Amino acid sequence: MIAANDFRNAMSLLTSAVNVVTTSGASGDQGLTVSAVCSVSDSPASLLVCINQSSRSHDDFLVNKVLSVNVLASQHETLSNAFASSKFNAEQRFQLGEWTRLQTGSPILKDALVSFDCEIEHIQTMGTHSILICRVVAIHQGQTNAVDQSQEGLVYFNRAYHQIGQVEVI
Amino acid sequence: MIAANDFRNAMSLLTSAVNVVTTSGASGDQGLTVSAVCSVSDSPASLLVCINQSSRSHDDFLVNKVLSVNVLASQHETLSNAFASSKFNAEQRFQLGEWTRLQTGSPILKDALVSFDCEIEHIQTMGTHSILICRVVAIHQGQTNAVDQSQEGLVYFNRAYHQIGQVEVI
Repeated sequence: MIAANDFRNAMSLLTSAVNVVTTSGASGDQGLTVSAVCSVSDSPASLLVCINQSSRSHDDFLVNKVLSVNVLASQHETLSNAFASSKFNAEQRFQLGEWTRLQTGSPILKDALVSFDCEIEHIQTMGTHSILICRVVAIHQGQTNAVDQSQEGLVYFNRAYHQIGQVEVI
Repeated sequence: MIAANDFRNAMSLLTSAVNVVTTSGASGDQGLTVSAVCSVSDSPASLLVCINQSSRSHDDFLVNKVLSVNVLASQHETLSNAFASSKFNAEQRFQLGEWTRLQTGSPILKDALVSFDCEIEHIQTMGTHSILICRVVAIHQGQTNAVDQSQEGLVYFNRAYHQIGQVEVI
């Protein structure tokens, strides 16, 4: 039996992208900062997101059956912290970025590196978490306001943010 | 309907750790380079790995019901390429590293940043891929031979390797 703390220490060495995962429905727009996002298949285009069942918006995702994964860029540390914190309400969090919508209605961050608009197709429970297996129905490539027209990815490694690479914005 | 190529282009902007996922059983030691690894829950300690059903070792993982996830460090680019390539056989690939075993018998890379030894508990199919949901039964924190006793993580972003951070080796 692996202690939760030992597992979390070990997992801190698995670098991950930082994402804001949003949904929209009867309870309005909701969103969470999530690192546990993973590509699944390109046929059909699909990905998965792991969300703690005790997270404030967990049930909204299950009810709405839609979500969008917004892959954050290096300028989004403040946004990431706000969507991870309980100090803000949903309205305050969304005020920190500019948003649009694609097919499912879930908020899409305009200057994310890339956003995946998804329908939740299958939910698998494992311990404290739900694994949301999603079909991608639309993709939005972000636009930056930066003068150099390039963006870096925001990643989390060893319990700290890091910036990585540079991607040309089309 | 999202074209496979559009999905792959978009997914190239989701930074991921680079991992060699191994298994051991009747057909010997096998391994693959996999970026689609994701933490699930700390209670019980669990993670998931997505593997293409057409991958050479896919069926070995399903038969053996065990695997180990070895999170690669910056010095492992050659190892990563070998486990991703069809130009080598299993024996040649494993000769490129030093290995040990923990509880399940799956090869553990001695100088990985960290390794998770796992039992496969549930398999979910999605399109071309199998999602292997695993319980972690042992953890190995890597040891480096580097003089400075520190390691960087190996990550993949925008179709290229990058190095990230530094972690003190205990």
